[in-house]
Amino acid sequence: MRGEFCVIAPDVVLGRDVAIHNFVNLYGCEIGDETRIGTFVEIQKGVVVGARCKISSHTFICAGVRVEDEVFIGHGVQFINDRYPRATNRDGTPQTEDDWTLQQTIVRRGASIGTGAVILGGLEIGARAIVGAGAVVTRSVPAGAIIAGNPARIIRVASDK
Amino acid sequence: MRGEFCVIAPDVVLGRDVAIHNFVNLYGCEIGDETRIGTFVEIQKGVVVGARCKISSHTFICAGVRVEDEVFIGHGVQFINDRYPRATNRDGTPQTEDDWTLQQTIVRRGASIGTGAVILGGLEIGARAIVGAGAVVTRSVPAGAIIAGNPARIIRVASDK
Amino acid sequence: MRGEFCVIAPDVVLGRDVAIHNFVNLYGCEIGDETRIGTFVEIQKGVVVGARCKISSHTFICAGVRVEDEVFIGHGVQFINDRYPRATNRDGTPQTEDDWTLQQTIVRRGASIGTGAVILGGLEIGARAIVGAGAVVTRSVPAGAIIAGNPARIIRVASDK
Repeated sequence: MRGEFCVIAPDVVLGRDVAIHNFVNLYGCEIGDETRIGTFVEIQKGVVVGARCKISSHTFICAGVRVEDEVFIGHGVQFINDRYPRATNRDGTPQTEDDWTLQQTIVRRGASIGTGAVILGGLEIGARAIVGAGAVVTRSVPAGAIIAGNPARIIRVASDK
Repeated sequence: MRGEFCVIAPDVVLGRDVAIHNFVNLYGCEIGDETRIGTFVEIQKGVVVGARCKISSHTFICAGVRVEDEVFIGHGVQFINDRYPRATNRDGTPQTEDDWTLQQTIVRRGASIGTGAVILGGLEIGARAIVGAGAVVTRSVPAGAIIAGNPARIIRVASDK
Repeated sequence: MRGEFCVIAPDVVLGRDVAIHNFVNLYGCEIGDETRIGTFVEIQKGVVVGARCKISSHTFICAGVRVEDEVFIGHGVQFINDRYPRATNRDGTPQTEDDWTLQQTIVRRGASIGTGAVILGGLEIGARAIVGAGAVVTRSVPAGAIIAGNPARIIRVASDK
């Protein structure tokens, strides 16, 4: 399924039965089998999303992020890959990719990231962890943990749902 | 008024003088008279929005939400309808609508929901309540109350503006 | 550079070498030389954005905001210009621009606003200040300060990066 008003760059690698809703912007990324991508989503180059994931509307996945299989990402989730973002260098020239360090983030199999969460760069979200809605995640999250808040803190270990 | 690059499914019911800005995605919903819908908004099936509401840009209203008349919803507001979202069932098959329970939320007449707020599922936002910008709303909000924070707490009862 | 599916109103004033990505909605605003505007961005009338800025995807800049040169604005950042937003007046008529007071906000040269931040109206973000990801900014920020949280508080004075 492919929605209306989508921009899927020629270098995007789509698995089998990927569902893409309206107003989606993908470039340089790889999307696994049966994954669903919601409206107003952007996924940047170098991102790898696994199979059977759900990426909900208004979400942004930046370069440097890897999402394993069966991950749920809610609406309006934003990833980050630059610890000290600046528009320009000290000499006033616009920053290019050579002017900053790309932070890598991995979201492990079966994790769920709640709507409106912000995920700082350089983190690991453990398998089947649950990131609460609106959480601002500043540290890695152990497998199975539930975190929430700004900054996010562990509130309990997930009962196995 | 109808903006450019909009996808309004044939099953959408629009009242009189509904204003729809650019890049709007609507399906299966009902929008009341004189309501205004901003850019990059998605409203899902089953949603009923009342009359004379304002739904601002980048906002997502999911299935299960009902918005009464004269409600203001700020920019980048995200509703939720699933308490424990997962991409797949335990057997690895992608979840469908039969695999989870839709939570219902109602926003009562004249309420205002601030920009960037996240509204968890199963809640009631009372009449003329004010949800502060960036609030993460985890409990129902009494009529006329002002709430803010993550998680949101009541900070005072609204002076009647 | 101009992306696909953009709506750039005829009254927009673009400087030299402005880069505009896909799905961008601009009207009545002025954008400075070499500034880059990401996907799913809306910038309203009366906004002035300086030179060599970077405005990242999913961000909303409302009327009343001025952004000086060399400012970084992350993904999903939302500005606000109305202290007590309501959809309608007390008599039930939809509010128009004459029914509320536009708050002015200025972002000073070289500041960086982190992803997912919400900036309330009527504030000044000082030169080279850093607003942390997910911050809800309710007060003005001194030059060079780093702030984070909801509500945002100063966490330290920026080392000069």
